[in-house]
Amino acid sequence: MTTTSRQIVLASRPHGEPTAANFDIVDTPLAVPGPDQVLLKIRYLSLDPYMRGRMSDAKSYAAPVPIGGVMEGGTVAEVVASNSERFRPGDIVLSHSGWQSHAVADAKDLRKVDPGAGPISTAVGVLGMPGMTAYTGLLTIGQPKAGETVVVAAATGPVGSAVGQIAKIKGARAVGIAGGADKVKALTEEFGFDVGLDHRSPTFKADLKAACPNGIDVYFENVGGHVFDAVMPLLNFFARIPVCGVIAQYNATALPDGPDRLPLIMRDVLTKRLTLRGFIVRDFADQSRDFFRDMSQWIAEGKVKYREDVVDGLDKAPEAFIGLLKGRNFGKLVVKVG
Amino acid sequence: MTTTSRQIVLASRPHGEPTAANFDIVDTPLAVPGPDQVLLKIRYLSLDPYMRGRMSDAKSYAAPVPIGGVMEGGTVAEVVASNSERFRPGDIVLSHSGWQSHAVADAKDLRKVDPGAGPISTAVGVLGMPGMTAYTGLLTIGQPKAGETVVVAAATGPVGSAVGQIAKIKGARAVGIAGGADKVKALTEEFGFDVGLDHRSPTFKADLKAACPNGIDVYFENVGGHVFDAVMPLLNFFARIPVCGVIAQYNATALPDGPDRLPLIMRDVLTKRLTLRGFIVRDFADQSRDFFRDMSQWIAEGKVKYREDVVDGLDKAPEAFIGLLKGRNFGKLVVKVG
Repeated sequence: MTTTSRQIVLASRPHGEPTAANFDIVDTPLAVPGPDQVLLKIRYLSLDPYMRGRMSDAKSYAAPVPIGGVMEGGTVAEVVASNSERFRPGDIVLSHSGWQSHAVADAKDLRKVDPGAGPISTAVGVLGMPGMTAYTGLLTIGQPKAGETVVVAAATGPVGSAVGQIAKIKGARAVGIAGGADKVKALTEEFGFDVGLDHRSPTFKADLKAACPNGIDVYFENVGGHVFDAVMPLLNFFARIPVCGVIAQYNATALPDGPDRLPLIMRDVLTKRLTLRGFIVRDFADQSRDFFRDMSQWIAEGKVKYREDVVDGLDKAPEAFIGLLKGRNFGKLVVKVG
Repeated sequence: MTTTSRQIVLASRPHGEPTAANFDIVDTPLAVPGPDQVLLKIRYLSLDPYMRGRMSDAKSYAAPVPIGGVMEGGTVAEVVASNSERFRPGDIVLSHSGWQSHAVADAKDLRKVDPGAGPISTAVGVLGMPGMTAYTGLLTIGQPKAGETVVVAAATGPVGSAVGQIAKIKGARAVGIAGGADKVKALTEEFGFDVGLDHRSPTFKADLKAACPNGIDVYFENVGGHVFDAVMPLLNFFARIPVCGVIAQYNATALPDGPDRLPLIMRDVLTKRLTLRGFIVRDFADQSRDFFRDMSQWIAEGKVKYREDVVDGLDKAPEAFIGLLKGRNFGKLVVKVG
């Protein structure tokens, strides 16, 4: 039986964009599973923008990964050995084992994945955390109504693509933003957005305005940066802005000089009666049953489509993650670990 | 019978702080009341920060006062002559007649004021728009819970003082901010705040931190500017920020140079899961019955106290309004018109 785990650990905290030097690969002896524990072989590792936050020690909603610690992450794993009555070898489970090949986990921290519900990797994608982020943030905070306009960026990603498709299911108009011609094309052709826009286009601001002739009612904020700047003036009275990520700012080390736009946004919040609300998916943990039921049904009916970007081999995780923060992936980024 | 109305009209739009030159005093012939109309003699005019917004033609939630138009404002008036079955001469009514001595109004736009419920001027104060702004914004958006900390600025004003006292009624800790020793003293001694702070103090930032040992759960934003800067780092996870006014910014003509703090606040919105929501009192018009019932009872029980700053004579309204934007009033500013 396996007695070591190949792990990717945090070697140093990045200053700005992470580099390969911030990660180390080590082989660490595994503990023997105790009572109510299982030994897991990791099959898929999810790579997500929030992980950049865990690499920093700035105050946030979660503790940082310690230097030398295994990088955090959601995983889909196979039970290899079990001291728990709930799990048998061969079972597929959702765990939070991080960037490694094997792990010992408490049975109470695992959830069984039904391999009949679709590819098991979707348990960290459209049927997992990213899908539920889209579902809860859009429906609870964004509350799109029929005929309203919903805008989302990183729209071929697992959160953005689900946001757009759920908006359509609710009868809203969906405008998706992505970077690069291939992705923009996929927005309308693959995911059913009404309009797809390229934020790298020199005419992006005007393009967005033209795509939203009735203004913007919901802006699902998951990137920050210049997309938000283009969105701001188009927001309608009573617009809602769920804020679940600000990828463009994860790497920021200092505030940009220039006019201070905080007074501007506060004035807009007042005069347009905007709602901005930050959230992370676990704030809405009590909606997980509703989410799983609705999303499974929508996928089965073909109303929600998803795309995965699979990287082969744990050793490639750092490079893939660095690319993720630059928007290089196309679809939900997962690492096939074993 | 009176056939003219003395009016204060908008002579020109201010650039930055309003000056006396932005106002004109004129005597205008009154129309004869038609069917279902009444002739009003204005008794009290309410002066409120939002009026600064009406002097500008920037896009906002309400149309600007046209050049040469009567300045807008809530008034308490006496019916002098009536062509409506609902009103008799001598009745006291709430109207939106603006900065003038007399007016002809449609009966449908008037609400009867019960002179037995307290001084009739409270119909534009603690029992009127400012009181209801505090009540609806604090309870609907702020949602203070027992033991939480609520912070409000302009805290001797009609909105701020009600916010603090309602927070106390709900079992929260109330920290009030005002400018000048007299006002700060009144916060604890007159209005029952737990702590009163002077935002002009050179140690204000440290004072606020010391006054909020458990952080801030609700910041009722009605001033903007440097108070918000001091509040920001103290906000707790899941803090709520009702935004009902940004007095400090009403006069702003350009954005200040320096670091752009928009990315900073967006990061805090995410990591602390803040809720910022702008509102004006009429967004919650359906709560007016609850408001009037609760607030009348709290005043009768001595749980809510109020203070008025009465200026004598319509001609003094411009000067008093300019002073209001500089925080010179002490309590709800009303003009005794006649």
